[in-house]
Amino acid sequence: MQALVDAARRKGSVLVAGLDPIPSRFPEELRTLSEAEATLEFCQGILEAVEPYVAAVKLQAAYFERLGPGGMGIYAGLIEAARDLGLPAIADVKRGDIGPVAAAYAEAHLGVYGATCVTVNPYMGEDAVLPFLEEARRQTLGGGVFVLVATSNPSSREVQESTEPPLFEVISGLVAGLGRPAGDYPDVGAVVGATRPEIGSRARELLPETLFLSPGYGAQGGDTSGIRPLLDRNGGGVLVNSSRSILYAYERSASDYRNAAREAARDARDELRL
Amino acid sequence: MQALVDAARRKGSVLVAGLDPIPSRFPEELRTLSEAEATLEFCQGILEAVEPYVAAVKLQAAYFERLGPGGMGIYAGLIEAARDLGLPAIADVKRGDIGPVAAAYAEAHLGVYGATCVTVNPYMGEDAVLPFLEEARRQTLGGGVFVLVATSNPSSREVQESTEPPLFEVISGLVAGLGRPAGDYPDVGAVVGATRPEIGSRARELLPETLFLSPGYGAQGGDTSGIRPLLDRNGGGVLVNSSRSILYAYERSASDYRNAAREAARDARDELRL
Repeated sequence: MQALVDAARRKGSVLVAGLDPIPSRFPEELRTLSEAEATLEFCQGILEAVEPYVAAVKLQAAYFERLGPGGMGIYAGLIEAARDLGLPAIADVKRGDIGPVAAAYAEAHLGVYGATCVTVNPYMGEDAVLPFLEEARRQTLGGGVFVLVATSNPSSREVQESTEPPLFEVISGLVAGLGRPAGDYPDVGAVVGATRPEIGSRARELLPETLFLSPGYGAQGGDTSGIRPLLDRNGGGVLVNSSRSILYAYERSASDYRNAAREAARDARDELRL
Repeated sequence: MQALVDAARRKGSVLVAGLDPIPSRFPEELRTLSEAEATLEFCQGILEAVEPYVAAVKLQAAYFERLGPGGMGIYAGLIEAARDLGLPAIADVKRGDIGPVAAAYAEAHLGVYGATCVTVNPYMGEDAVLPFLEEARRQTLGGGVFVLVATSNPSSREVQESTEPPLFEVISGLVAGLGRPAGDYPDVGAVVGATRPEIGSRARELLPETLFLSPGYGAQGGDTSGIRPLLDRNGGGVLVNSSRSILYAYERSASDYRNAAREAARDARDELRL
């Protein structure tokens, strides 16, 4: 995780810009292009616009997968473009499989596609996390794995909180047990949403040393009041993702989409200096 | 799910052949090719060899993803080749994301890539299942969604069975609530491993009407004694996946890999006539 932490420090920003390219929301000027071409151009424009204000970018793999094999080429190109701008890339793939299958996914996203970090789904237990972790350690790029712990969507409650102990506590234990010291934080982080302060604060209690990646800020309804309970004893330990409220900021403005995204990223960075 | 059920009936087989192409295990004759070329040729050879004895094929997406964008082209080609042979394809992607992200994954695998069914990870709750189900219904190909319920790997216990009620029972409830009648079975099925008879029989108790997809037969250590507890009151309701013990049967034989796979598939089909 140190690559993310170093970038956050250098930029003075805990903001992660999420690339969730949704063609129907692209600006008029890109509508004459194919979906694939428009996706590439839109995301490149966003990357360059937000670079000064963000610690990292998070690519939502689904939107590239939807474009077929060519979409994965665009995904590869954007991870490379991010690296050229000095931005670590988090591959938001939420893959959840085991053993050699998990190893193949890990090799794909951390090796072939070159992301620094990856998000992982723990439904199948530690067999689903370890192969990603081993691949991240092999790459020695200061990367790591973010395990889904408590997500920000409404129906997560019925699964993550309905048992005794709550599933998100079981998974917190898994996260705590798998990480190794790797600089400021262990190399296994946790995805903890910003929409449920009481859950966030319990996750922090169980994982006092862990780096959190927090979605749900901005468009999903979270705000800084949801982030505060996630902070560690030093008032840090959280990277905050914002996707749609940066990408589509132009919809609420008279600006070019790049300028609107740049301003939205700068404002979010400032708001998140808690 | 009716496409699978019809194929199983037509073939007199509940066997699903899993395509898990692992280049280091390919036969000598394919070693001179690139990994991508060898993967395509190996999988096409397997498809044609096993076709008479299987109800469907299951493609393990990770092994194609590992080959980069070109690997996804091969994945597409194999789903099409399966369809040309009259075999429904199950995209074993275990994706687990929500809302528009899940919808993008669903569009990718059930739409763009053309699979009939898809496997889904329920960690994020019903938000993670519904978009896949909606896409499967939109395609009207008799497809559906298999939700991970109780998987066959050792570390699944710490997550799926360690709470009260056990997580796999919570997810069984989710599966029961989401499916709609769609022929012989509802359009939401369950992935239930063949390695843990007591868990399998509890899952069947909770899901008396559901079609199960059962991995872990053959190479993973399951056998027909693990399948019996999964059967419904009519002695059916289970499709059984076998991957490595079919694909790499040639390692234990003097035959060509295709002949060895064909014999292994025929034997497994016969063994599974319970």
